Amino acid sequence: MDHNWLEKQKEEIGLALANQGIRLVVPVGKGKRGATPTPEDKSLASYIDHTLLKPTAAQTQITALCEEALRYQFASVCVNPVHVPTARSILQGSDVAVCTVVGFPLGATSTLAKVCEARDAVAAGAFEIDMVINIGGLLEANYARVYSDIRAVRDAVPGVLKVILETGYLSKEQIVQGCILAKMAGADFVKTSTGFGPGGATVEDITLMREVVGSDCGVKASGGIRDYATAMAMIKAGANRIGASAGIAIIEGLRGDADY
Amino acid sequence: MDHNWLEKQKEEIGLALANQGIRLVVPVGKGKRGATPTPEDKSLASYIDHTLLKPTAAQTQITALCEEALRYQFASVCVNPVHVPTARSILQGSDVAVCTVVGFPLGATSTLAKVCEARDAVAAGAFEIDMVINIGGLLEANYARVYSDIRAVRDAVPGVLKVILETGYLSKEQIVQGCILAKMAGADFVKTSTGFGPGGATVEDITLMREVVGSDCGVKASGGIRDYATAMAMIKAGANRIGASAGIAIIEGLRGDADY
Repeated sequence: MDHNWLEKQKEEIGLALANQGIRLVVPVGKGKRGATPTPEDKSLASYIDHTLLKPTAAQTQITALCEEALRYQFASVCVNPVHVPTARSILQGSDVAVCTVVGFPLGATSTLAKVCEARDAVAAGAFEIDMVINIGGLLEANYARVYSDIRAVRDAVPGVLKVILETGYLSKEQIVQGCILAKMAGADFVKTSTGFGPGGATVEDITLMREVVGSDCGVKASGGIRDYATAMAMIKAGANRIGASAGIAIIEGLRGDADY
Repeated sequence: MDHNWLEKQKEEIGLALANQGIRLVVPVGKGKRGATPTPEDKSLASYIDHTLLKPTAAQTQITALCEEALRYQFASVCVNPVHVPTARSILQGSDVAVCTVVGFPLGATSTLAKVCEARDAVAAGAFEIDMVINIGGLLEANYARVYSDIRAVRDAVPGVLKVILETGYLSKEQIVQGCILAKMAGADFVKTSTGFGPGGATVEDITLMREVVGSDCGVKASGGIRDYATAMAMIKAGANRIGASAGIAIIEGLRGDADY
C-alpha cells in the first residue's frame, strides 16, 4: 500500500469528521488494549477467541465451550449476549475473558440499541465486545455516521472493543477506511468477519488491516479459520487474535495427533 | 393436528409458566391487531410488508423502497432499525406503516437489549416490530425464558408486534410451542422466517401456525416468497401478511404482464 495514499485517506476522513463538528479525542487508556505483543509472549491458544454464535446453541454447549476454554487457556469465549451470564458464572476468576457480540451480525441497528446492548452485556459480565460496524454507512462513505456509532459503543465499554468490518462486503479502499475510522474512534481491535456474511478472513486483508492500524491496535482474523496452518498464516500476516469455532482443532494441529 | 394434543400443549406450557411464577395477563387492547380480516376486505398489496433487510442497503434504496410502497399501497416497508428515520420521513401521514426488526436475525441477544432496540425504533417512528424469538430457549423448552422475552418487548411496543419463530430450525412440535408462547405473551402476529436462516415459509407450516393461533392473531409468511402463486398459496393456507422483497413481482403477477 502506498504510504502517501494512506496518509491522504486519514487526512480526508479527519476533515470529513471535522466538517460534521466531530472532534477526535481518543478516550484515555482505551484503544490500545489490542497492541501487538512480541510473539514469544504468547502461546497459540492465547490468540484464540473460542467461538459459538449459532442461534440454536444450547446451554450445555455453552458450558462445554467454557470448560474447553479453561482447559486450553484460550483468550476468551465468544458467545451471544443471551449466554453471557452462563459464561461468566463458569469463567469468573479465570484468565479466560467473556466476549460477546453487539449489533450482530448485520450491524444495521441504531447506535442507541448497540450502546444498550453493549452496556447490558458488560453488566452481565462481558469484558470484550465485538461490535459490527454500520456497513451501509461505510459503503456510502458516511464517515460521521460510522465513527459516531463506534465511538458511542467505545464510551459504553470499559473493556476491550473490537470492530467487525465484514470485509466480504467491502472493497480494499473501504477496508482501509473502516480501519481508520475504528482506530480513530478508539477501538482496541479491528476484525474481519462475522462468520454469517460473505467470505471470511484472508491473508491479504489481514496484511492490509495491520498496515493501516499499526502496532498499537489489534487485528482479529475470523471467518473460515479451521486449522493450524490457516491460523498461523493469519498470525504471520499480522493478526494477533483469531476468532474460531475450531480452536481445539487448531491447537491439536500444533501439538500433533500423537498428543491426543 | 389433533385438537386434544394442542389443548394439552397449551395446558402444559401454561403450567410450566405458572410454576415459574408467571401470571398470564394479555395486555389490554393488544395482541389482536393481527386478527384475520375477511378476504374481501383486502387487496393483495395490503398483505405485503415490502422488505429490504440487507446490511449493505443504501439510503437511496430505502427511499426507492418507500416510494414503491406508497405507489403500490403495501401494508408496510420492513427495514433495518438504522433506516427507520428515513422511512418515517417518507411515509408519515400515509397508510403505509414503518416496520422494523429487533434481535435480528439471531434472536440471541438479551431481553433488555431487545426492549431498548424496540423502544428506540418506536421513538424513531416504527409502528410494527418484527422480533426474533429466543431460538435456543425454545429448542431447550425453556418456556419461561421465551415467554418473558416476548412479553417484555410486547410491553415496550404500542403498535403491532410480530414474533419470528425461524421455523427452519424447529420441529413441528416446537413451531406449535412457539405459537402458543407468542400468543400468550400478546403478540399480534407469528411469523415464519428471517430470510437469513435455513429455509423459509412453507404451506404446511403456515397451515399449522394458523391452526394454533386461531383467527384473532395474525400469521406472517416470510422467506423465499418471490411470486404471485407462492404468495396466494400462503394466503390460502392462512397467512394474512406476506414478508417479501419481491412485492412488486408478486403484484405484477396478479395484474398480468400486459399492465407493465
